[in-house]
Amino acid sequence: MSTELADHHSPNMTFDSTAPKNVSVPANVHAQAHGAAEVTAACAAAEAAFDPYRALPAERRAAFLERIGAEIIALGDVLITTAMRESGLPRARLEGERGRTVGQLNMFAGVVRTGGWMGLRIDPALPDRLPAPRPDLRSRMIPLGPVAVFGASNFPLAFSTAGGDTASALAAGCPVVVKGHPAHPQTGDLVAGAIRAAITACAMPPGVFSHLTGPGNAIGTMLVQDPHITAVGFTGSRGGGLALVRLAQARAVPIPVFAEMSSINPVILLPEALRARGAALGTAFVASLTMGAGQFCTNPGLVVAIEGDGLDAFVAAAAEALRATAAATMLTGGIHIAYEQGVAALQANAAVTTLALGQVGGGVAQGRAAFFATTGAQFIRDATLGHEVFGAASLLVRCKDEAELRGVLIQSEGQLTATLQMDADDRACAARLIPVLERKAGRILANGWPTGVEVAHAMVHGGPFPATSDGRTTSVGTMAIDRWLRPVCYQNLLPALLPDVLGDATTAPRLIDGVFAQPA
Amino acid sequence: MSTELADHHSPNMTFDSTAPKNVSVPANVHAQAHGAAEVTAACAAAEAAFDPYRALPAERRAAFLERIGAEIIALGDVLITTAMRESGLPRARLEGERGRTVGQLNMFAGVVRTGGWMGLRIDPALPDRLPAPRPDLRSRMIPLGPVAVFGASNFPLAFSTAGGDTASALAAGCPVVVKGHPAHPQTGDLVAGAIRAAITACAMPPGVFSHLTGPGNAIGTMLVQDPHITAVGFTGSRGGGLALVRLAQARAVPIPVFAEMSSINPVILLPEALRARGAALGTAFVASLTMGAGQFCTNPGLVVAIEGDGLDAFVAAAAEALRATAAATMLTGGIHIAYEQGVAALQANAAVTTLALGQVGGGVAQGRAAFFATTGAQFIRDATLGHEVFGAASLLVRCKDEAELRGVLIQSEGQLTATLQMDADDRACAARLIPVLERKAGRILANGWPTGVEVAHAMVHGGPFPATSDGRTTSVGTMAIDRWLRPVCYQNLLPALLPDVLGDATTAPRLIDGVFAQPA
Repeated sequence: MSTELADHHSPNMTFDSTAPKNVSVPANVHAQAHGAAEVTAACAAAEAAFDPYRALPAERRAAFLERIGAEIIALGDVLITTAMRESGLPRARLEGERGRTVGQLNMFAGVVRTGGWMGLRIDPALPDRLPAPRPDLRSRMIPLGPVAVFGASNFPLAFSTAGGDTASALAAGCPVVVKGHPAHPQTGDLVAGAIRAAITACAMPPGVFSHLTGPGNAIGTMLVQDPHITAVGFTGSRGGGLALVRLAQARAVPIPVFAEMSSINPVILLPEALRARGAALGTAFVASLTMGAGQFCTNPGLVVAIEGDGLDAFVAAAAEALRATAAATMLTGGIHIAYEQGVAALQANAAVTTLALGQVGGGVAQGRAAFFATTGAQFIRDATLGHEVFGAASLLVRCKDEAELRGVLIQSEGQLTATLQMDADDRACAARLIPVLERKAGRILANGWPTGVEVAHAMVHGGPFPATSDGRTTSVGTMAIDRWLRPVCYQNLLPALLPDVLGDATTAPRLIDGVFAQPA
Repeated sequence: MSTELADHHSPNMTFDSTAPKNVSVPANVHAQAHGAAEVTAACAAAEAAFDPYRALPAERRAAFLERIGAEIIALGDVLITTAMRESGLPRARLEGERGRTVGQLNMFAGVVRTGGWMGLRIDPALPDRLPAPRPDLRSRMIPLGPVAVFGASNFPLAFSTAGGDTASALAAGCPVVVKGHPAHPQTGDLVAGAIRAAITACAMPPGVFSHLTGPGNAIGTMLVQDPHITAVGFTGSRGGGLALVRLAQARAVPIPVFAEMSSINPVILLPEALRARGAALGTAFVASLTMGAGQFCTNPGLVVAIEGDGLDAFVAAAAEALRATAAATMLTGGIHIAYEQGVAALQANAAVTTLALGQVGGGVAQGRAAFFATTGAQFIRDATLGHEVFGAASLLVRCKDEAELRGVLIQSEGQLTATLQMDADDRACAARLIPVLERKAGRILANGWPTGVEVAHAMVHGGPFPATSDGRTTSVGTMAIDRWLRPVCYQNLLPALLPDVLGDATTAPRLIDGVFAQPA
């Protein structure tokens, strides 16, 4: 990453969105480019806001999260039309994404209120224990400190300015400094304005949220290096995520980076399912593959099957559906170029057959769907076949038997998801594969498609490297709050000095001597 | 770290313990030095054992942990006498440490049985939800895979072969490959034998535990680089821990390193406590400082106070007690040399006054206690004054007022513990400092001493960098198991394919739609 950045306020500097120019903002509309001084000021403000913010009662923090959602809704249709213009995504998708974003904020408000995230543990003193008394020990999770969040290009609302990383960090008690994605700067500015309105309405410390925008990597580099920043959330490319990890590790005080990066989400077509409904699976697969021009972290980029009845029907139906698929405008020119390079590399690979290509688009940055095939033996031989091609491209791996299919799964990298298409008679085979899939993926689905990630308590949107930089975490669902927390134990503290939630009168969910005590 | 290591079996190679030669094994007793082939074999065996081991019912795993404890007890006095000879630590200390080691194994057996560690979450399907149905989502924590554990020199039992890292990893379902500390190879071999006896008695997969010994860093380097290893536990020096972190980050698939490294454990003497009992605090402080030749992670290496009544009495009493303290044999020659260098650097620092030195010892590797003083202004100016000197050395920082004391705490690095010595009238001051201490330390104590770490549910033996490499974790107490786990979500899986604990009939502790359901 470049570290060039003007070391002064730069109120008059602007930059152009990186969105493809045929759908993007008119040439005379561009966004503010922040400078080094603004990065430093935002981080210092976040640090100043941390202690007052984390000390607020849970109800204040919950109401703040809900107010952010209400302010986003209050922005009205201009948010949707702006995001459509900047991202090229259709209205229905963005309206759905807005609902998801607000729902996520409300869900974390609920998490803050119920208090399980605090992980309260109380081991009362045992003054008469022999050979030595036990002290009074009480622990809770506290927020890490200011968090840097990098907005994602592919979800201008739900994984960006007020997306899941921001919502979960604010819920944890961490101030947030967002580096907005340059593909949708105006959408980001609108959402940032909604958050600022909520800060005012809820009388929050102003530094609890800042929004930085600009081209290139300089702002992000400074942000991760700022000594006040204590953790980083990121959704994007493997290269981008790993660059942030390296920066964070090289600090005098290293900090955790929770980067959700790269996944090709294997879909395993088991024999009986293929036999019963090969063609239907082919059609449904293409619908999942091409949704949103394939620009989902959970896009099914790998299909694995054993040679047998129904596989040819799957291929024929998928190829037919794919050929009929219109090209779609991709999120940025850079994403489109990388997609075309990935597709060209597969086409040039002698071990790969091109099964079908989608329709050619009429404008710039048009992503043309692509479907390829190879064999299990070739996949195991050539690790590059397992690399992500971000967009609507997928590779079918034809295996000669279950052992080879198992080998393909073991050879593949860590994933966000793994999907089993199976019928009742595939159960024994599925049972043999699940232990392999558990080690490869954060979520295992049956008879669905990996696109579409429910925001829920049990959701895991994470997975072993390179799906994420820390496979012990999720960036979607209520468990996402755990990334921003660390435990602190209080030993023999006067009751008056203990946090209220750790006092004897607490009603929050807690373990007492290791046993769960139900809230009153 | 060196990577030289013979690439073949080396059954006849041996090495000498690194323990000081006056207390250590006779010259003709030495330990086996393992080679590269044994490292590879141990990791492959751990990988082979992983799926069968993690699939065992909880009761089998719990009984295995308890059996390890019973086999350690069954070793009898030879374990104590061997550890005394290798470590130079006294009988009572090692008997206590054996009790702690066995108690820890039993505690994790209880954790395995109660099942809270699995973090079960069930969000049942909502087929009628609009605009789209919710799938059935169930998640649990699963073990990461084979874990490498590095034994610590200062706890030959409780933080070594069958120590907290091993116990918590085995409890999580992870096979363990231990790199024994070369300071106590025979103690390690005895304990490894006890674990092997438990493996046989409980019919565990043999690869679930291996014990590697040898001099130098080659075995450890190979171990962390082995592709089957999925996480690392370490207790030791900052240099050693950071070397392991670098190795782990440089892997093709990076893995987490949980290193407990460096802490000087500030003790803050608040004004009223000093006024009321300055001299008594001084005497008690020296008892904590010099226990075990000061070779504890939680040794009080920093004392911070505001100039005022009682501080001189504290200094006088501490100096008197310290001067009367006999020298003690340190754990290894290397530790002793590093200690003497650290003490010499403080003595040579013009900003530091030597308040007292302990008695000179008569043998080799004799650690002589040392007590120094500086001012708050000097401490804030010179970051080296905050570095750990492992052993019975401590630095008093005399501050002119509370603001300077606060500055000293902010300037200090991340810590395992922070201690407040306080009386009732110090409460307001303590309340102002606690938010600072929460950000600096994993455990905050009042009116005790940091040495002595209770093994309990609420214990946190961790803290911000450099106390540990991951301040979101603890290496002591039941929360230590969380380091070796990651979440997996199952979406719409047939009940027959779900893990039993996630079925509708489960009685384990779990969240249903985010609400805790008490076990039946």
